[in-house]
Amino acid sequence: MSNLLETIHSPADVKKLTIPQLTELAEEIRERLIVGVAKTGGHIGPNLGVVELTLAMHYVFDTPNDSFVFDVSHQAYVHKLLTGREKLFHTIRQPGGLNGFMLRTESEHDSYGAGHAGTALSAALGMAVARDMSGGKEHIIALAGDAAFTNGISFEALNNIAAQTRRMIIVLNDNAWSIDKNVGAIAEYFHKIVTNPTVSSLHDRAAGLLEKYGGKTARHVVRKAEEAAKGLIGPGMLFEEFGLSYFGPLDGHNLPLLIETFKFLKTQNRPVVLHAITQKGRGFQPALEKQKKFHGLGPYDAETGETKSAGQKTYSEIFAESLTKLADKNEKVVAITAAMPNGTALDLFRPYHPKRYFDVGIAEEHAVIFAAGMATKGYKPFCAIYSTFLQRAFDPIVHDVCLQNLPVVFCMDRGGLSGDDGPTHHGLFDISYLRSVPNLIHMVPKDEDELADMMYTAMLHEGPSAIRYPRGTGPGVAVKAQPVAIEIGKAEVIRDSGRADVAIFGLGAMLPEAVRLAEMLEREGFSAAVINPRFAKPVDRECVAKFGERCGLVITLEDHVLAGGFGSAVLETLNTLEVQVPVVRVGWPDEFIEHGKVEALRAKYGLTAEAALEKARPYLSKMMEQILAKHS
Amino acid sequence: MSNLLETIHSPADVKKLTIPQLTELAEEIRERLIVGVAKTGGHIGPNLGVVELTLAMHYVFDTPNDSFVFDVSHQAYVHKLLTGREKLFHTIRQPGGLNGFMLRTESEHDSYGAGHAGTALSAALGMAVARDMSGGKEHIIALAGDAAFTNGISFEALNNIAAQTRRMIIVLNDNAWSIDKNVGAIAEYFHKIVTNPTVSSLHDRAAGLLEKYGGKTARHVVRKAEEAAKGLIGPGMLFEEFGLSYFGPLDGHNLPLLIETFKFLKTQNRPVVLHAITQKGRGFQPALEKQKKFHGLGPYDAETGETKSAGQKTYSEIFAESLTKLADKNEKVVAITAAMPNGTALDLFRPYHPKRYFDVGIAEEHAVIFAAGMATKGYKPFCAIYSTFLQRAFDPIVHDVCLQNLPVVFCMDRGGLSGDDGPTHHGLFDISYLRSVPNLIHMVPKDEDELADMMYTAMLHEGPSAIRYPRGTGPGVAVKAQPVAIEIGKAEVIRDSGRADVAIFGLGAMLPEAVRLAEMLEREGFSAAVINPRFAKPVDRECVAKFGERCGLVITLEDHVLAGGFGSAVLETLNTLEVQVPVVRVGWPDEFIEHGKVEALRAKYGLTAEAALEKARPYLSKMMEQILAKHS
Repeated sequence: MSNLLETIHSPADVKKLTIPQLTELAEEIRERLIVGVAKTGGHIGPNLGVVELTLAMHYVFDTPNDSFVFDVSHQAYVHKLLTGREKLFHTIRQPGGLNGFMLRTESEHDSYGAGHAGTALSAALGMAVARDMSGGKEHIIALAGDAAFTNGISFEALNNIAAQTRRMIIVLNDNAWSIDKNVGAIAEYFHKIVTNPTVSSLHDRAAGLLEKYGGKTARHVVRKAEEAAKGLIGPGMLFEEFGLSYFGPLDGHNLPLLIETFKFLKTQNRPVVLHAITQKGRGFQPALEKQKKFHGLGPYDAETGETKSAGQKTYSEIFAESLTKLADKNEKVVAITAAMPNGTALDLFRPYHPKRYFDVGIAEEHAVIFAAGMATKGYKPFCAIYSTFLQRAFDPIVHDVCLQNLPVVFCMDRGGLSGDDGPTHHGLFDISYLRSVPNLIHMVPKDEDELADMMYTAMLHEGPSAIRYPRGTGPGVAVKAQPVAIEIGKAEVIRDSGRADVAIFGLGAMLPEAVRLAEMLEREGFSAAVINPRFAKPVDRECVAKFGERCGLVITLEDHVLAGGFGSAVLETLNTLEVQVPVVRVGWPDEFIEHGKVEALRAKYGLTAEAALEKARPYLSKMMEQILAKHS
Repeated sequence: MSNLLETIHSPADVKKLTIPQLTELAEEIRERLIVGVAKTGGHIGPNLGVVELTLAMHYVFDTPNDSFVFDVSHQAYVHKLLTGREKLFHTIRQPGGLNGFMLRTESEHDSYGAGHAGTALSAALGMAVARDMSGGKEHIIALAGDAAFTNGISFEALNNIAAQTRRMIIVLNDNAWSIDKNVGAIAEYFHKIVTNPTVSSLHDRAAGLLEKYGGKTARHVVRKAEEAAKGLIGPGMLFEEFGLSYFGPLDGHNLPLLIETFKFLKTQNRPVVLHAITQKGRGFQPALEKQKKFHGLGPYDAETGETKSAGQKTYSEIFAESLTKLADKNEKVVAITAAMPNGTALDLFRPYHPKRYFDVGIAEEHAVIFAAGMATKGYKPFCAIYSTFLQRAFDPIVHDVCLQNLPVVFCMDRGGLSGDDGPTHHGLFDISYLRSVPNLIHMVPKDEDELADMMYTAMLHEGPSAIRYPRGTGPGVAVKAQPVAIEIGKAEVIRDSGRADVAIFGLGAMLPEAVRLAEMLEREGFSAAVINPRFAKPVDRECVAKFGERCGLVITLEDHVLAGGFGSAVLETLNTLEVQVPVVRVGWPDEFIEHGKVEALRAKYGLTAEAALEKARPYLSKMMEQILAKHS
């Protein structure tokens, strides 16, 4: 195998290649992706699907002058390989290495970052309008998967495009999958287009014409295709109704066809949609066989696709198993996911209660309002949505659920630092954005068993509640056969000598650090109580009062930003109670945290027992002086 | 005129009427609306448009067994009049009276509340699915205006409906207006249907058939209409592509036609859309002539429609004028509204810079991402969105704007208690949901001139910023000819004797109360400093440190919830600075605040100088003891 990829230092180098060379390069890229991501982990499936699309785009267009906006942007690895980052590709998702998504600060070729789906059309329209106003000539190309069209923002954008610009290219990368198989009317609509026999023959015809006439008659080929498409009722109608010109469907792996089509679309003075059919995981048998698994995953064997079994159950799995048990006994329990049955592990719930399982697509707002609607009829919906994605539904949480005091349960997976995925996926804001909303209860379990208890508590509670739990595995505590209800707003004292110079509140995943800190303090001669707060809202006032009055220092630890977080809630509580005691708050600072390993990032930003001790040092010294003075 | 309306105590009474009586009742209702709302203020235009629709719905369906979900629900006055609330109608939007929107706690006929648009289809689908699961037979009817289809949530719902239920009725109440004239592809699409000559003749034919055959052949009429519609490419196609059966367009003021159509739709075992054409403001000439003005307004003359001129300029008007001036000098300044040119006063900006004015529809998420896209190309977008509606865009603010540190400016009108509109419209959460987001600056002006200065500051600032200002008028301070940039994070000391026993931070609209409080304190023998914080983020640490160290008490006042609000930010700042001083925080409690007059509600919930003094009393007594001890 030659080494074409090594000769590509920028998109200009792509343009120098012949079609056969491009085809060869595509194979090299696939190999590189499969072998590389096997070591780093990452979104292998989506990237294998867009090799030819990305090559064709870079062959025809000219970044950074032209702008590519990739929806959700986890499919930008090929783009990264072609834009001067090949040498760094082995660092992707590694600490200090390339980010797994587009990042404006990483490259001038990354014109727009994303990690949440559905934003590409809106962002691209903003760019196109800005370009029009400035009298620019550059091209704006948005690449969005079919799943992005289950999200409302894409439609809000579609409603505006035709009225606001005459030059914008949308590539609909249709592989019929988001992370899981797509659901709903849009998925069916796209499927209908693709399986329409007239469309199929048209597609073959376009490919045939191209073979016959070559690039010279590109316009002829594409116009023929377009004319034929117009004759059909159905294909593209949806886009045409939004005032966009529709082209397709085309084979998204046919490089010459894609290149000729892009060349043609480039000349158009109207907003266009190119519908490209791609195969997620193409070129890697294990990924084709297990599309869900190979959407995004950790390291795997590049030959067999095998991954090491985690062994210990993740919080997500505990959540799904607990919900299944609750649903076994309570027929009003239903489960809702926004296109994340795998990530939230609700696919484990589904086989047991298929009729009480709802995947609504990448539609977090709808998910929450749909849940509210069900709740008005006596159901108890559990919405499993990652902390960062639930930001999408903030208004429905306020306006539909909490204002009407409806008993919807928000199960926020990936609450806390998410690690490798980086800032678009960290769940570091949920306490602050939810804590101000009246009627809502916010719980954070210390371990797997407590998660089960909190879910049970939430099921019994007659108002709205939220539970946040971290990505991955917890301490490995076995879940009891029967969950137990927790008193609302009641913290749990983990250790307390009855004296306690220092009280340490260790929220959720930070509880082990709180215990470590207590041990460190005791080695230094202080007695330390450790509290598992359980509730970020309502804070246990009695507990805070007791320790605030008794102790010389209160320390809070949380896997959340400090601004408006749990420590801030403790400050408010002490303030309301009129208790004056020094408080040291440990949590994430007021900045976006990069991707990396959770432990390393905690150490870097001071979310450790050691750092907490350091921060508490001035208060401790003063306390020690007082203790010694008392004893002398 | 007879008094049919007085005989309607519940929907059952509507069903007893004959068609001529219903027509008479419609006229009575119109009269009642026009005269009643003239005194109370309210959403007169939308309600005049749905008189016949609401009557027909209550004639054919059976609330509270059947459920009506009204999108945005400001068009529920007729529904309120027909569901046992006629005697209370004069209290609508008045303190202690009926709410201006649907409210589950107000009546069992109000099955779902709303004040933000676009939620009806999702909520209704939740109800329909719950009904199906429980084996219920009741009907779920969602009534949504055409403007609701500029919002993405409606499409997220559309994507799910056909897959999840076979029985749900959507009424598309098409009057071609949201608050302002609708924009975008969807509006054009609906317009195309209505103006299609075939459709028009079809519509006439349906009405004619009905007249000829009467109710007996309802099915025949509607089927004919349906068949004819199917023959057209265009009408309803959009809905059909989403798997819904489309009926219409029908005259939304033709009571017999509506009744027969609903009777037919009731029997259908498939989700259906009824497209009804209505006239906003029907029956009231001033409202027909000035649709925007009569969407929702204060009291007016029931004869002429005249309103008293406010005289003093509102904050919204100051905002629009200031933005116009900024745009005059800086060609990169653009204005974005989400269907609120009137409410935000951007319609005053539009004539001066029509090409830099963007109304994107009720699409807050798109608005913000579109702004982010423009910002990547060097533009300086000002997004004017009410504080409560900006909740919709929380994720784009985090994920698109702040994470990428793009210089988008959020101008949050109606920041603080909104008054008559009630809890769906109060803007009481923006400090807490925005304060945790890195890179964002949050400003609150004390008066009109400072708003202009803050907008200028935001324009010059290279990162994202937000400015909140209250509904209505401010203190009436004249705006300088040239705005002045404010130092980021710098508070303004309004009065300070240099001694100051008490420091009072009065944020924005609460500054006058802070000054009043200072005067009250001084009458009691305390010296009090008053600070205009200007920034909810970043808090002026130097200023907080200075007064925290010097004073015996700090008092914060804010028109915002206490949880996570400005007072909480001051607590955090003092905590970080390791300054120990008692703090009294004054703001809204952790509950949803009802509608009412702002002043009365402030008094009720303790947002006054008097209440602050009361709250501070224990600290003041202690301070006075110390002061007296020192002097004795």
